[in-house]
Amino acid sequence: MVDSQPDVSTKVDRLLADLAALAAVGDTGDGGNCRLALTDDDAGGRELVVGWMRDLGLDVRVDRIGNVVATRAGSGGPGLEPVMTGSHIDTVRTGGRYDGTLGVLAGLEVVRALDDAGVRTRRPLAVAFFTDEEGSRFAPDMLGSLVYVGGMPLEDALDLVAIDGAVLGAELERIGWAGSAPVPGPAPHAYVELHIEQGPVLEEEGVAIGAVTGVQGISWQELTLVGQANHAGTTPMRLRHDAGYVAAEVAGFVRRLAVSLGGHQVGTVGRLGLHPDLVNVVAARAVLTVDLRNTEAAVLATAEERVRSFAESCASGEGVTASWRTLARFEPVAFDPGVVDRVEAAAVARGLSVRRLPSGAGHDAQMLARVCPTGMVFVPSRGGVSHNPAEYTAPSDLAAGTQVLADVLVDLAA
Amino acid sequence: MVDSQPDVSTKVDRLLADLAALAAVGDTGDGGNCRLALTDDDAGGRELVVGWMRDLGLDVRVDRIGNVVATRAGSGGPGLEPVMTGSHIDTVRTGGRYDGTLGVLAGLEVVRALDDAGVRTRRPLAVAFFTDEEGSRFAPDMLGSLVYVGGMPLEDALDLVAIDGAVLGAELERIGWAGSAPVPGPAPHAYVELHIEQGPVLEEEGVAIGAVTGVQGISWQELTLVGQANHAGTTPMRLRHDAGYVAAEVAGFVRRLAVSLGGHQVGTVGRLGLHPDLVNVVAARAVLTVDLRNTEAAVLATAEERVRSFAESCASGEGVTASWRTLARFEPVAFDPGVVDRVEAAAVARGLSVRRLPSGAGHDAQMLARVCPTGMVFVPSRGGVSHNPAEYTAPSDLAAGTQVLADVLVDLAA
Repeated sequence: MVDSQPDVSTKVDRLLADLAALAAVGDTGDGGNCRLALTDDDAGGRELVVGWMRDLGLDVRVDRIGNVVATRAGSGGPGLEPVMTGSHIDTVRTGGRYDGTLGVLAGLEVVRALDDAGVRTRRPLAVAFFTDEEGSRFAPDMLGSLVYVGGMPLEDALDLVAIDGAVLGAELERIGWAGSAPVPGPAPHAYVELHIEQGPVLEEEGVAIGAVTGVQGISWQELTLVGQANHAGTTPMRLRHDAGYVAAEVAGFVRRLAVSLGGHQVGTVGRLGLHPDLVNVVAARAVLTVDLRNTEAAVLATAEERVRSFAESCASGEGVTASWRTLARFEPVAFDPGVVDRVEAAAVARGLSVRRLPSGAGHDAQMLARVCPTGMVFVPSRGGVSHNPAEYTAPSDLAAGTQVLADVLVDLAA
Repeated sequence: MVDSQPDVSTKVDRLLADLAALAAVGDTGDGGNCRLALTDDDAGGRELVVGWMRDLGLDVRVDRIGNVVATRAGSGGPGLEPVMTGSHIDTVRTGGRYDGTLGVLAGLEVVRALDDAGVRTRRPLAVAFFTDEEGSRFAPDMLGSLVYVGGMPLEDALDLVAIDGAVLGAELERIGWAGSAPVPGPAPHAYVELHIEQGPVLEEEGVAIGAVTGVQGISWQELTLVGQANHAGTTPMRLRHDAGYVAAEVAGFVRRLAVSLGGHQVGTVGRLGLHPDLVNVVAARAVLTVDLRNTEAAVLATAEERVRSFAESCASGEGVTASWRTLARFEPVAFDPGVVDRVEAAAVARGLSVRRLPSGAGHDAQMLARVCPTGMVFVPSRGGVSHNPAEYTAPSDLAAGTQVLADVLVDLAA
């Protein structure tokens, strides 16, 4: 384990400088970043990071969907699969400077620390960034890693149309990042990703390191309720078919259900709109989304069923019709227990507080988990805030996470 | 009462022809009308109706806010105040052909029927239409009648700015309807207005005539809830400050409260918006409106207090701040019991089914009620639909309502 490995000390100052330099590309002037996938700013970020990769003497390969894998040779001879780390450098429109970028730039810092220590691992070490993790411009999210592991045919991915009308394949050519390495790409020996938590748990509990056990399953449903527009003054309560009322009851139910199921169950109605949306008109139509997540597939399915059943009963009682559309549905992903153990042990060995927790957000790691033993390291997000210019992780936490990443990578590559 | 009066028979065919001719002005091509106050189409409607008034030999006066009062002389000599009927001919953007126009054109049909029968009432009979009843272009609604009864100074009214930026006084001049008659205008002896119900009660109960007892008090509040935006996947339920959840609970409470208070209490959350309104973000902010109405001032105040108290307790439990803005507040208006009795008696005398009911919508009559004994006659609205091209009242119901109006006016003018 860690203590049998060479001591490779990472340096947070170098990491902070890299984070700042990358944040200057697509700077939104409010502390935030915007490098939507395959825009000119994304290309600017790619050039900067690949320049650093080349400066470190890494073997840089770009694949046909624009994923970049930079490999440091190992001492074990040819034929050994690399241990991979990485994440993404694209952002949402209101991105911060840590989401994704931390995992990539910390990977480069690990390479630098290995160079400083004169350590060559037995297995090669690869630092990757995957195209379009955010899905903000081209849906779905985690697209590059999905294609990398063979989860979507390349041709389908190249045909995707952006929210701005651009076609993915054409944009990839236009910005000069359509590479030649084949997809699906080769499965690594293992994959470990460092990422900010994007949630409040570590901060709230004063814990430095999260040993991520997996990614919650996600169910996104859109519910459309159709009732009847009526005058708010002249229509007695008993004669109403109020789509807005049913929407409100469903939203309240989702909250109560999530609390009553407990554990890692979360439930959110984040979008809710009424039509015609006038103070004195009973709503004819309501559209709302229900976001349910759980680490347990069976509980997630139960939650979906109970929301659907409640909504249909409430709608029926009100004389309102309910129709559903699935916006997204992913089963939970469990990370490799051995990798999770190594993350936890590495934190303990460095004297860092650590807890196991699932990820509530999606990450490239969940795609890699389809093809190799995978794990993640989380560091605290101040206030749980992410996808926001106010996104922040303290330098000491960045340092701790990077060190744990280094130790686990060295361990796995031995 | 009615049976001691001359038999004045109104004719629905003439009324239908007038309604159709007026509906052709500002025809929206979908069965609807748009004559927003003080637009060119409003002016077109005014010219048509005033032409008919002049054809009937009425004395037409236009006041300084553009209200039009057309008077048929009585036999009782000078100094007797007229009995007034009327309503408005402006419409909402998606107006039908009956709302308001019915009360004005039925008034003219009563004059025609009196002429046909060779009957001269002792008191003069006035048919009025008031400026900007709808309030769709210039708020507040019922503006012309409000100024007529002295509820708003003329200068304040002339300074009002429309949603399209126009100034009321300038628009009144531009379309040529700034008259010279002073406001406040003279109080009539009594005021009776025929209007479509704009609600479903009469149709649902198969009743031909509504003897309107008053207008419900109205409370419009806007509630702004501010919580914290958070990731829907990574934020445990216990750490949320979900403005959308509180909004949903308030909307559900408003419904349950209205049902539990019973009687004429209604409660509606017709407008509800979340911010940022994204499927995977806990809402940072929610804005909703609460429309409460009751005929009883004390119950209305109780309802307001209970909604406020519930919302504040729910918001406080969620760590969300709640702030309120009053959008409108009118105390209930009770019509004159003697006039309500006369409406009911006139219906019974004509063999028509009748019930007493309050108005859930605002009407010019509630302004006139400040200065003279006032009542209203309602006729059924198909499906309770109004402010909609599908607004419809059957010819037999129009005939019945016009006849009851004629009988009550003749009775009051005796």
